Amino acid sequence: MRVLGVDPGLTRCGVGVVDGVAGRPLTMIAVGVVRTPADAELGHRLVAIEQGIEEWLDTHRPEVVAVERVFSQHNVSTVMGTAQASAVAMLCAARRGIPVALHTPSEVKAAVTGSGRADKAQVGAMVTRLLRLAEPPRPADAADALALAICHIWRAPAQNRLQQAVALHASKGRTR
Amino acid sequence: MRVLGVDPGLTRCGVGVVDGVAGRPLTMIAVGVVRTPADAELGHRLVAIEQGIEEWLDTHRPEVVAVERVFSQHNVSTVMGTAQASAVAMLCAARRGIPVALHTPSEVKAAVTGSGRADKAQVGAMVTRLLRLAEPPRPADAADALALAICHIWRAPAQNRLQQAVALHASKGRTR
Repeated sequence: MRVLGVDPGLTRCGVGVVDGVAGRPLTMIAVGVVRTPADAELGHRLVAIEQGIEEWLDTHRPEVVAVERVFSQHNVSTVMGTAQASAVAMLCAARRGIPVALHTPSEVKAAVTGSGRADKAQVGAMVTRLLRLAEPPRPADAADALALAICHIWRAPAQNRLQQAVALHASKGRTR
Repeated sequence: MRVLGVDPGLTRCGVGVVDGVAGRPLTMIAVGVVRTPADAELGHRLVAIEQGIEEWLDTHRPEVVAVERVFSQHNVSTVMGTAQASAVAMLCAARRGIPVALHTPSEVKAAVTGSGRADKAQVGAMVTRLLRLAEPPRPADAADALALAICHIWRAPAQNRLQQAVALHASKGRTR
């Protein structure tokens, strides 16, 4: 499974592509950041993010796009821009028929470090280890994007089993 | 000046087109709502909003798109969806080179009713009067979209004068 992880943001949108299946060593394919100038108009920044995400989708052809689920509770000053950048990433994927998966920051931290309350350094260290990199990806948004992709690869089997169980239960209900 | 007003929302995105200049009677060209099903996946809802906004831009060719400025402070339960829908509207406009203007809810209310704290009924009543309609547009999101367009037509001359003054001041600074 090839997953593009997106850590959404207007100024820096982290993007990382990971190949792998649960239980096997993972492979980093690419990592980077889509940047937009803070002094540009909001509409133009969203267009720049769209162009950046489109390039990543064209180049790496992911099967799934995993985006951080944005909450309105935390970090009020930047949350609107984060929500808007995430909307563009989801739009680009859905327009191509690529499934979009959302994972919360604590799900991502728990997946790669074992603790939903791990700090950025810990996430960066585990991403480095799990992908067998020489050093932590910089900036932190890039590492977070890779962590999102890893989180999705590891959580997907459980999510699929759950969906299959729900579907089975629903079909049994219909034939009863 | 032809303005498309957008009152962003995932379930109902109000859209309204108004022709006019400050100080002259205004003309409503069209009003409506772009709807997406609440049980659809978020990515698919954003694609549906994009298609709806694109149709309105194709049909009515506005010179400006006026979008409600979303704040994270109020209405926490729906604000993320509102931010995401507004991102799609801004993206569609900016991609075509159409200027995007943001107005706060209180700016819009103050423009059409004289009070930044007017309720929805008051806004609907004034939109009906200013556009000489037989009855208030329904749902309220559609009326709010028209109010946004009216607000922009009336505020634009002042905003342009301010921008010209700033530009003039900057150019004087350079030649000093």
